[in-house]
Amino acid sequence: MEEKLNKLKHTLGKISDLNHASAVLGWDQQVSMPELGALERGEQLGTLGELAHNLFVNDEVGQLLEDLAAETKNLDPDSDEARLIKVTKRQYDRDTRIPSEMIAEFARVTTVAHGEWAKARSQNQFSIFQPHLEKIVEMVREMADLFKPYDHPYDPLLDMFEPGMKTSDVKQIFDTLRPQQVELVKAISESKQVDDSFLHLNFPKQAQWDFGVAIAEKFGMNWERSRQDYAAHPFTTSFGLDDVRITTRIHEDLPASALFSTMHETGHALYELGFNRDYRRTPLADSASLAIHESQSRMWENLVGRSRNFWTHFYPQLQTAFPQQLSNVDLETFYRGINKVEPSLIRVEADEATYNLHVMLRMGIEIELMEGKLEVKDLPEVWKSRMLDYLGVASATDADGVLQDVHWSGGMIGYFPTYALGNLVSVQLWEKMHQDMPDLDENISKGQFGEMLQWLRTNVHQYGAKYEPQELVQRITGSKIDPKPYMRYLNHKYQDIYGF
Amino acid sequence: MEEKLNKLKHTLGKISDLNHASAVLGWDQQVSMPELGALERGEQLGTLGELAHNLFVNDEVGQLLEDLAAETKNLDPDSDEARLIKVTKRQYDRDTRIPSEMIAEFARVTTVAHGEWAKARSQNQFSIFQPHLEKIVEMVREMADLFKPYDHPYDPLLDMFEPGMKTSDVKQIFDTLRPQQVELVKAISESKQVDDSFLHLNFPKQAQWDFGVAIAEKFGMNWERSRQDYAAHPFTTSFGLDDVRITTRIHEDLPASALFSTMHETGHALYELGFNRDYRRTPLADSASLAIHESQSRMWENLVGRSRNFWTHFYPQLQTAFPQQLSNVDLETFYRGINKVEPSLIRVEADEATYNLHVMLRMGIEIELMEGKLEVKDLPEVWKSRMLDYLGVASATDADGVLQDVHWSGGMIGYFPTYALGNLVSVQLWEKMHQDMPDLDENISKGQFGEMLQWLRTNVHQYGAKYEPQELVQRITGSKIDPKPYMRYLNHKYQDIYGF
Repeated sequence: MEEKLNKLKHTLGKISDLNHASAVLGWDQQVSMPELGALERGEQLGTLGELAHNLFVNDEVGQLLEDLAAETKNLDPDSDEARLIKVTKRQYDRDTRIPSEMIAEFARVTTVAHGEWAKARSQNQFSIFQPHLEKIVEMVREMADLFKPYDHPYDPLLDMFEPGMKTSDVKQIFDTLRPQQVELVKAISESKQVDDSFLHLNFPKQAQWDFGVAIAEKFGMNWERSRQDYAAHPFTTSFGLDDVRITTRIHEDLPASALFSTMHETGHALYELGFNRDYRRTPLADSASLAIHESQSRMWENLVGRSRNFWTHFYPQLQTAFPQQLSNVDLETFYRGINKVEPSLIRVEADEATYNLHVMLRMGIEIELMEGKLEVKDLPEVWKSRMLDYLGVASATDADGVLQDVHWSGGMIGYFPTYALGNLVSVQLWEKMHQDMPDLDENISKGQFGEMLQWLRTNVHQYGAKYEPQELVQRITGSKIDPKPYMRYLNHKYQDIYGF
Repeated sequence: MEEKLNKLKHTLGKISDLNHASAVLGWDQQVSMPELGALERGEQLGTLGELAHNLFVNDEVGQLLEDLAAETKNLDPDSDEARLIKVTKRQYDRDTRIPSEMIAEFARVTTVAHGEWAKARSQNQFSIFQPHLEKIVEMVREMADLFKPYDHPYDPLLDMFEPGMKTSDVKQIFDTLRPQQVELVKAISESKQVDDSFLHLNFPKQAQWDFGVAIAEKFGMNWERSRQDYAAHPFTTSFGLDDVRITTRIHEDLPASALFSTMHETGHALYELGFNRDYRRTPLADSASLAIHESQSRMWENLVGRSRNFWTHFYPQLQTAFPQQLSNVDLETFYRGINKVEPSLIRVEADEATYNLHVMLRMGIEIELMEGKLEVKDLPEVWKSRMLDYLGVASATDADGVLQDVHWSGGMIGYFPTYALGNLVSVQLWEKMHQDMPDLDENISKGQFGEMLQWLRTNVHQYGAKYEPQELVQRITGSKIDPKPYMRYLNHKYQDIYGF
């Protein structure tokens, strides 16, 4: 057992090194790379990916995993060893299920589709993208079928991002959530709107950067193990347990963008910096799922960063950093301004109250595409009518509607629910944290986050990918992923702000 | 033939990808990496190196190379195909000659030695480093012996950096050069010293950066294929034909440092950006040798950057960038100041007239260590006495003497001559360029470098590693590496400046 486990770990270590090397190349591509380096960078990433795949998907690793899985039957199923083998075997089974020719073909199809999607969006013409999306949907269904038997054809897709989660689970969650969110948004829409005009003045770039960095440090970022850079799109990436980086972008006339994006990415980074050090260079040094990852980013961004308690402490500092813009704006006005709700067409610009509705709209379409209940050609109309149902706004163009997001052109179907699930989990954890730490709000209003970060490390971060997401949430909160805490939070918050 | 060649190229392409990925990781380590990322970065680089080695050193590649070498006997020996196989086979023979256990052992020894060297230097105590250097010398001799038969035990070491070059060649070159350089330095020392006090005023960082970038652009750098960053030590690195990067450091009270280092690294980068595009992802997309590489950097730094012609055009711009510091310094005073000769103890601070003497001192010691004529324990005294002979200065401490350079602690023996050979080659090429382009000096004094860069691309850059260094110099200039042009250049330049 010991010898086989070491052999497996040796190989997994090399694969981890290759994946982290790819992450460095990817980071550099988005942060530093001169324009014409793209072609060769693509080749290099291709080679690293191929070598990592070949190290993993081969009979020797398959045999090792089978032997070890048999032998771990005598181990505590919750031991790190048993879980490492379970998680690795799960990845192995998935990676061996799809033939490499199909992966290569899918890469070709999505590369073309991505270009055609960009063209379709810029020309506002869905028909350009339609045949490519049809091909993608067809191939994704074929891939899903490789994972039969399943309860639902969307299950294998969802499972890639949310291990162990079923389509019936998310359907049930979102069927409860959607009408309540629709109702909330309606109530807000009928209330007097708050003022956020002061968030559209000019906020100098360097001062925005400095304030964001100071907040990230307060949250617990340690620049000996991290750094922040500029990139076109904010993201978090890991090169190991001790080098986890974030990026941001700054718009001078939209200060909320960089500020909350830095908080968001800091939440992601603190998660990855908190994995058990014994998991280094193994598949356990990863997030439990994208929803759990998102629960961390959304917690720091929204539950902390858009709270009255937080700004009680930090607003005077923000006013000092931007006296011209904010000296005449009081705390309460500022707090309402950063929490303004306004149904809009674009997901990435959506506020807390409307965000999940965008996600549910897209997820519903994905599920029906997989079920064969919906055809690609009908998507523009379906999109528009549901947008009106869910959010009360109508998109005039496909560019602002069904074509707005890049994900489908890359073949990513099954990914969207994780955005909304993360919001739900963040509040479940938040309620439990408040039970465990009655002083939490008071500490936040003093700008102190040490106790909160410690709680997250102990209860969430350290476990990495050891537990599946539903299991992890259950272990911590006593219940699986549940929309009720999130609705309580939203209703409470917006009743207070909008006074309905 | 075609099929085998394609098979070889396919493997070489992957190795090239891995090596370029390692280069990205190395660049990031020196430019961006947070402090605690070092351990994991080392593991990642280790894995990438191991995979590249395993892809290359195996019986399949060995057999391919043998077959191809036999088949290319019918080809033009100067064809790219024949040369690719020759250069690759040369690397293969070298990489298979040293057993991997010995490489691993050498890595362990030098890792320890590096730490002990740093300690020895900071405590100014050679005895701390001595046993480690003894072990390194012993191992390097063992490695050299694996390459028997040889004419001289230093040959295999030199050959790693200067393919095809013999110890007898460099001995002959340097035996001619040394007395003439000693004599020149003596003549300068007896002349009236020039003033360079204006190069020790405060020159603001950003203005230094901007001026350096502008010069690099004038030389021919294209930021779509390159970039400059800050690093502790200036260097050039390649991630492919279209992503070659340089770094610099800026001392506000030493403006010559960043200015000439940017010119130097630009020279290296232009070389790597100029390889024949057909050589992409093969071992031919590399420098012919370190001396040829250095000939490019020294040409732009010294022959161009420290010339009167260059500053005739650019000095007014420099004065505009730094009016407080330079408005009262005329062109001639500036020109003499940047060419001040002053024998000193430290190689990296040496000027053009004394630099080679530092190199020859160390190379002489290396050769005698290999011959067994010198023992490690005697190095401090030997260093001091030769320093006095060669440069007329005596080092009071070992830290400023035998311990000053890092190279030996990393096991790099055979590397130093390349620094001096590069200087010699730069002037040989320079003379040929002047024959081919009578307007060269006039163009430089107009700030025009297009013709010069084109000449270098056509005659030097495009060939990459196709020709061995002596062969390349012979093809271009009609003679092998020769110290006479360099001495002509030095004597002419310094007689003019120092008036002896």
